[in-house]
This record gives sequence, C-alpha cells and structure tokens, in this order.
Amino acid sequence: MATRELAVAARSASEALPDLVARGAAPSYPLYALGPPVPRPGKIVCAGRNYAEHARELGEDAPTHPILFAKLATSIRGPFDDVVRPLEVADLDYEAELCVVIGTGGRRIPRDRALAHVAGYTCANDVSARTAQFEPGDQWLRGKSFDTFCPIGPWIVSADAIPDPQALTLRCRVDGILRQNGSTADMIFDVAALISYVSDAFTLEPGDLILTGTPAGVAMGQTPSPWLQPGQLCEVEIPAIGVIANRIVAEVTAGY
Amino acid sequence: MATRELAVAARSASEALPDLVARGAAPSYPLYALGPPVPRPGKIVCAGRNYAEHARELGEDAPTHPILFAKLATSIRGPFDDVVRPLEVADLDYEAELCVVIGTGGRRIPRDRALAHVAGYTCANDVSARTAQFEPGDQWLRGKSFDTFCPIGPWIVSADAIPDPQALTLRCRVDGILRQNGSTADMIFDVAALISYVSDAFTLEPGDLILTGTPAGVAMGQTPSPWLQPGQLCEVEIPAIGVIANRIVAEVTAGY
Repeated sequence: MATRELAVAARSASEALPDLVARGAAPSYPLYALGPPVPRPGKIVCAGRNYAEHARELGEDAPTHPILFAKLATSIRGPFDDVVRPLEVADLDYEAELCVVIGTGGRRIPRDRALAHVAGYTCANDVSARTAQFEPGDQWLRGKSFDTFCPIGPWIVSADAIPDPQALTLRCRVDGILRQNGSTADMIFDVAALISYVSDAFTLEPGDLILTGTPAGVAMGQTPSPWLQPGQLCEVEIPAIGVIANRIVAEVTAGY
Repeated sequence: MATRELAVAARSASEALPDLVARGAAPSYPLYALGPPVPRPGKIVCAGRNYAEHARELGEDAPTHPILFAKLATSIRGPFDDVVRPLEVADLDYEAELCVVIGTGGRRIPRDRALAHVAGYTCANDVSARTAQFEPGDQWLRGKSFDTFCPIGPWIVSADAIPDPQALTLRCRVDGILRQNGSTADMIFDVAALISYVSDAFTLEPGDLILTGTPAGVAMGQTPSPWLQPGQLCEVEIPAIGVIANRIVAEVTAGY
C-alpha cells in the first residue's frame, strides 16, 4: 500500500496503525495505547536551527553555537496520541527530530565522552506554533510548549544499537506526503557536541531529553505554507528507530 | 546593625543569618540548612520585562503581552544556598521577583478565578548571565538556567495571608546596598493575568512556579554595571514574605 494511500485512508492514529504494521513501519502487536517512553522528563532541551539547510529556509544564518530553548514536560505525549491545535493557533508546524535520552547524568561532560551518557534514542516531533514562537520578545517557549506539542516514541532504542547517531535518516510525512527527508549527518552541532554544550550549563540527569534540531522542509519554509490541519496524520520516522504517527485535532472549548 | 554593616561583616550566607535574625528579617531559629520550599517544580515559567521601568532601563518597549521563558528545575536552590558564577560568565546579574506557587492545577484558567489556583508566594532571585542570555539566537534559556540560578524561599506564605499580591514591596540588596526597591503594584501583567495567560498554553500543575518579573535596578541597566562578584551576598526581600540571602561563589573546575 502506498504511503499516501495509507494516510488518506486513515482517519485516526489508531486506524493508521494496522497500515503502519503492513508496511513494516511498526511491529505487528497492539500499540494503540503506548505511552511516551519518557513520560515525565526533568528537562527537555532543544537545539534550534541545527541543520544548515533548515536555517536557510527560515532566512537565518547557521548558528556559531547551539541555540538552546526548552519545551515543558506537560507537552509530552505518546507516539500515537493526538496533537491538539490550540484555539488561538492557525500556523501549526512539524519538525522531525532525533531525540537523545540521557542515561547517566553529569555536568561539564567532555565531547569525547558524551555518547557514553546516552541511554538511547527515540523519535520526536517538535511541534511549533509559528506566530506564538516569533511574537514580540522572540522567546520560543510558548510557541513550542503548548500541551501535546512534544510527541515522542515509539520506544527507546538503546545506544549500543545505534553506534553512530550521525548516520540516521529522518523523515516527516503529512497524510503520507513526504515533507522532510534528512540525515543526522547534516547536523551543525552533533549529538556529542550538544550533550557537552548543554551540560556545561545545566546538570544533566537520567531521563532528560535533548531534541537535536530538524532538517529542511518545515511548513514555514514553504510558500504557501502547508500548515498542519485538523484531521491530518503527521508521522516522524527514523528507520533505525521506528515511527510515531500523530493525528492533528482541533481544540474543543471545554469551558473552565 | 545597619544593613550595609551586616553584609560587609558576613562571610557566608550561614554567617549572615544571625544578623538577618537580629534585624527581624529571619525568624529566630536555625535555618542554615533550609532547602528550597519547592525542590523540584514541574515547570518554572517566567515573565520577562514585566515592569515598565525595568523594560525602559534595558532600552526595550513595555511588552503588549507577557514574554514567557523557562528556567530549568536544576537551577533551583534553597534560600541561603550559594549561587555559583560559572567559569564562562563575567556578567552575573540579580533580579528580585515575586514567585507564585501553584496549588490547584488547570488550563484556560480565567483571570477572575486565577488567584484561587495559588497555593502561596515566595521570594525568587532570577539570576541571569547577560552575555549568555542575549547571544545570537536570543533565546534566554541558557543565560537564565545555569545550575544555582534560581534560589527561592525562605518559605511559602499561603495565599490567604496575602490577599493582594499587587501590593507587595520587593527589594534586592548586594552586600547590603539597596539595588532594587519596587512594588508589585507596578507589574504590567498582574499575577492573575499571568496565571491565565500561562495556563492558556500550558496545563498548570500543583507546585509549578511562575516568576513574575523584576523591577528596575538590575546591574545591566547601570553604567558601569555592578555585576555580581564572588564573595558578595545577594539578598531578595519581600517584607510580607521574608528574605533569601545567597552568597556568590566562583565555580571551581572540578574536572569531569
């Protein structure tokens, strides 16, 4: 079954799963209720503009040092959970990312020992509300941390099974259409450099997450921008790890 | 004993405490090992430039909506703990702030019911490394979240004891010299408005902290800037709550 046909046919993440299984992108046992592999990280530190081509598509220079921002733990969701588009958001975007799960904590971790601090790797979608992200003051927290804006999973692949985290393909598909297709080889600051730089400022602890940036292809970089719409299925796939598939749903006013 | 004499005489936060007690700024029982009243908040959301005079001293316009950024839980320290100036930081600054401790969680909390979600209030020093805060990319996380950059305390005064959080004096002293002397009456977005705005994006949970911004008088706003130096004692006082007193110490290269 073609990827596009899959997505068009699927009405929800749980409906999509049998098709993910059929094309070998998910294992053949029930995962419908699988939660996030790290449900409550102590911190989620993200690297902005960490792929040169992505920086270019946003009209920005490649950074000379990692640009760090946070997502909040309340934004974490499971690999097949819904992503809720907030009432005030029209420009919802996807960002396929390799997510590092810290195993052994530390501070001032040297780059040449950094990978020994990794428990494993998982997929993340750094969901972003662009107007909120770039509103005056230019602090990205709000636009990056609405509830449900950080689906991760489907599981953690242990570090020993991924000897070179800089040789991974990562892709994003929306309703089966390929939107991002990059390689972690193109990171400006590699996983080891990010761990070292982050730990120079903040003590890392087991279960902390580092989101390592996204390659080119986000909606914001295109004209017109194909913002995520309610009903669409957004997948982030790293073949060495697996795939997460999150249905976009509109927020319903629930009252207070 | 004059405030300035106190601070000059004091060699450490624990030495300073008897003097704090003597002038009625701390209770008369041992608190030397008092930890942070919320040791591990799920999130720490801060409002930038939330006092007009402070925005002016930084050469910025008053914001038209709250500017939100995060501090990480690993930056939390107790009311009399040391603040460590990192090796790479020369321009360390203080920011006296009223810190809101959430009691009842929620999302989309209306402003007129927001104060019912407050467990209580405490003092915070939003310690900031200015070059790191404003480096290219302009994301404040790193400069705001080095380890030890968020001392809070000395305790939580429950919300029922502070019926009007917009009528509190807040001060910062460095070695006894008054550096900030403001009133929460001058917040641009008041406590209720901040809770409502933050909760529109992120589900608030019990123990979450909201730092409500700092009045004028920070080192960065002065020429030359009186950056915090190792050996100095930095106090944040909200008379209705109490005082925190943190010794600045230089980071020692501990090796890896």
